[in-house]
This record gives sequence, C-alpha cells and structure tokens, in this order.
Amino acid sequence: MQVAVVTFDGFNELDSFIAPALINRCRKDGLEAFITTPTPVVTSMNGVEVRGQRPLESIPDADVVLIGSGVRTRDVIADDRLLAQLPLDPARQLIGSQCSGALVLARLGLLDGRPACADLTSRPFVEDFGVTALDAPFHAEGNIATAGGCLASQYLAAWVMTRTLGEAAARGSIGYAAPAGEREETLERVMRAVRAEVPAAR
Amino acid sequence: MQVAVVTFDGFNELDSFIAPALINRCRKDGLEAFITTPTPVVTSMNGVEVRGQRPLESIPDADVVLIGSGVRTRDVIADDRLLAQLPLDPARQLIGSQCSGALVLARLGLLDGRPACADLTSRPFVEDFGVTALDAPFHAEGNIATAGGCLASQYLAAWVMTRTLGEAAARGSIGYAAPAGEREETLERVMRAVRAEVPAAR
Repeated sequence: MQVAVVTFDGFNELDSFIAPALINRCRKDGLEAFITTPTPVVTSMNGVEVRGQRPLESIPDADVVLIGSGVRTRDVIADDRLLAQLPLDPARQLIGSQCSGALVLARLGLLDGRPACADLTSRPFVEDFGVTALDAPFHAEGNIATAGGCLASQYLAAWVMTRTLGEAAARGSIGYAAPAGEREETLERVMRAVRAEVPAAR
Repeated sequence: MQVAVVTFDGFNELDSFIAPALINRCRKDGLEAFITTPTPVVTSMNGVEVRGQRPLESIPDADVVLIGSGVRTRDVIADDRLLAQLPLDPARQLIGSQCSGALVLARLGLLDGRPACADLTSRPFVEDFGVTALDAPFHAEGNIATAGGCLASQYLAAWVMTRTLGEAAARGSIGYAAPAGEREETLERVMRAVRAEVPAAR
C-alpha cells in the first residue's frame, strides 16, 4: 500500500516529514509513504531543497493521499492546472490533510458538510469555504481526516496506520517514536484522538 | 545566531527536521537553523534526498550544534576523518544530540561523567561508552543536552530556544506548532522537561 504525501513549494517540514517518517516504520508490513511533488525538486519554507520521490501523476495509484501544508497553499488553491493534478477519490482512497492542506480539500469540495482541523493561521481561510474549523487536533469522518497544528501529524499518521494495518501497527510505530519514558502517555493521547473517528454520514 | 543540524546519510527525518523547523519559527528573533551535511546531498533512511544548507566546515561558526540520528551513526563514529570535521566546543557552543546522535557525542568524549538520553535501539551502544542511558526524553547539563525518542526533538528545540532567546520565544514556537486544542498541555510538558536542566558540575 502506498501513501502519497503531497508536498508543494514553500512546504512546512513538520507537515510533510512527520507523518511519512512514522508511517514508513510500517514498510515491513507493506505500507510505504512517498514525498509526492509537482516538480522534481521542491524547496521548504525554510529553504531546504528536497527531491520528490514520486510525481503527482502517481496519485491515482496511491491508497492514501495526505496533503501537506506550507506558506504557499493559497497559491495552490488558486491554480486550476495544479488542482486538476489532484484527482482525489475518497470512495477508494483515504484522504488526509495537515494544517493548511485542509484548504486544498475544501477547494476540491471534499469537506462539504463536515468540520475540519487546521492550524491557527489557516482556520479563517478554511471557514471562508463554509467549513467549520474545530479547535481540536484531529477529525476523521469516513475516509477523510484533517489535522491541525504541526505536531498533530502524529495523529494523522496513526489514523493512516490504524485504518490500513490496524491499531497494533500504529501503536508499534508511535510507541517507538515517542519521547523516551513517555511511551504510554503518548500512545494514550494519540490513540484516543484516532479512536474518536466519526463514521461517514453519507 | 546559527544552529547547525548535523545530518548524515541514512538520517531519520524526524530527528533532522523537527528541531530546525521549530527553531526557525524564531528566525525573526535572529535564531536560524540549517541542515548541515558532510556531502552536498544526503539521503534519508526512507530514501528522501535533501540538499544540505551548510557544509560541516561551517560548524565552528555555529552557536548551537545539534547532531541528528539515523541508520548509519555507527559508521559515522568509526570514521575518524568524518569525526575530525566535528570540532564541537561546549565552552562556547550549545551542543545537543537526538537519538543515536548521542553516540557521536559519546565518541567525542563529550558525555564523560554524564548520563544521556537516546532511543531504545541506541541505548546499549551508548552504554558501551560507559555512559548511563536514561529512560527519559531529555537531559541537559550545562551546555550539553541529549534527547531520546524521535518526538523528543521538540524538547531539544525548546531547550535551544530557551537558552538562546529565552522561555517566551520557546513558548511561542512550541505553542504555535502544538496540536490544535492541546496548546497548554503541550507547553506544560515541553517546558517542564526543559526546566529540569541540571547545572554543569564542572
């Protein structure tokens, strides 16, 4: 199973690297995440140049698509040609967003009728789409999840691992990455957020 | 003030990206972190190619040096030529390590007489150097700090921001990146770890 972590120029490193690094601890179980980019190389908001591992054209082959965040998301949602390269299908893919990535999901109509999580800066722009922005780190409803606040990416990753491989795989990865000596409290906090998932209303 | 985040081939993305992304939220206050590499391009343990922002030769100019972690740290500490390119000076620099980065500090003699934090896999190798490995996420003593468990990088970043700019700057960055709705509990947990710093015995 493949996870596309969609990463645009100006990306936030926390939002594009935490989730895949956690998910890739499950590679031995057949779940693998790839930095997926519109151009061969993208540059982060802090000037870090990263070579994409997959092009956007690979998105239809992905089982899970996570939309990262960054300082240019508002340019992304104004770019119809770029949006046309994001043929997300929540009927057969798990779809998630991190922070301002929620704007991309909103722009694609994927948040219609659901609330969403986003970072403080993005929330008013999410609400401009008529989407209720939650003061919560994570919200999943059916096959669509949103996470807000960079460090909430651990919740998004745990949701992906739980939904694809089961709770044990998620606990294994999160438990390994947890701060030493804080394994149990980290697992409790992360898995509680994931378990609060709401069944799809539709 | 410059923070060198030393990143080797085979690096763990959590260990090299979380701390600088948090620290770079303080760029407006004059604190800036750079991915600092032995070769122009390094490849992560998950196959992500990243262009270094600074060469190892820049280390003497750094005010803070953080040693990242990865799957090849044991090759690093066996490579005398590479180690000679790490002239760390705790008398005038803050020095930190994340997970297996503690092995580099131990190999350089910087952990003599102090306990250290590291991830579960690295702990026995840290103890081979006669260093006591703590079941704790973060330990700072004077100008040297170690963090264990990838997600403990937030503690290492908070320590750097607190020691260079003060607690308010650290709270601003960590508070912004915290999972939405969990700002206060995140700040409490992170700042508690940082405040537990031990004065240098020597």
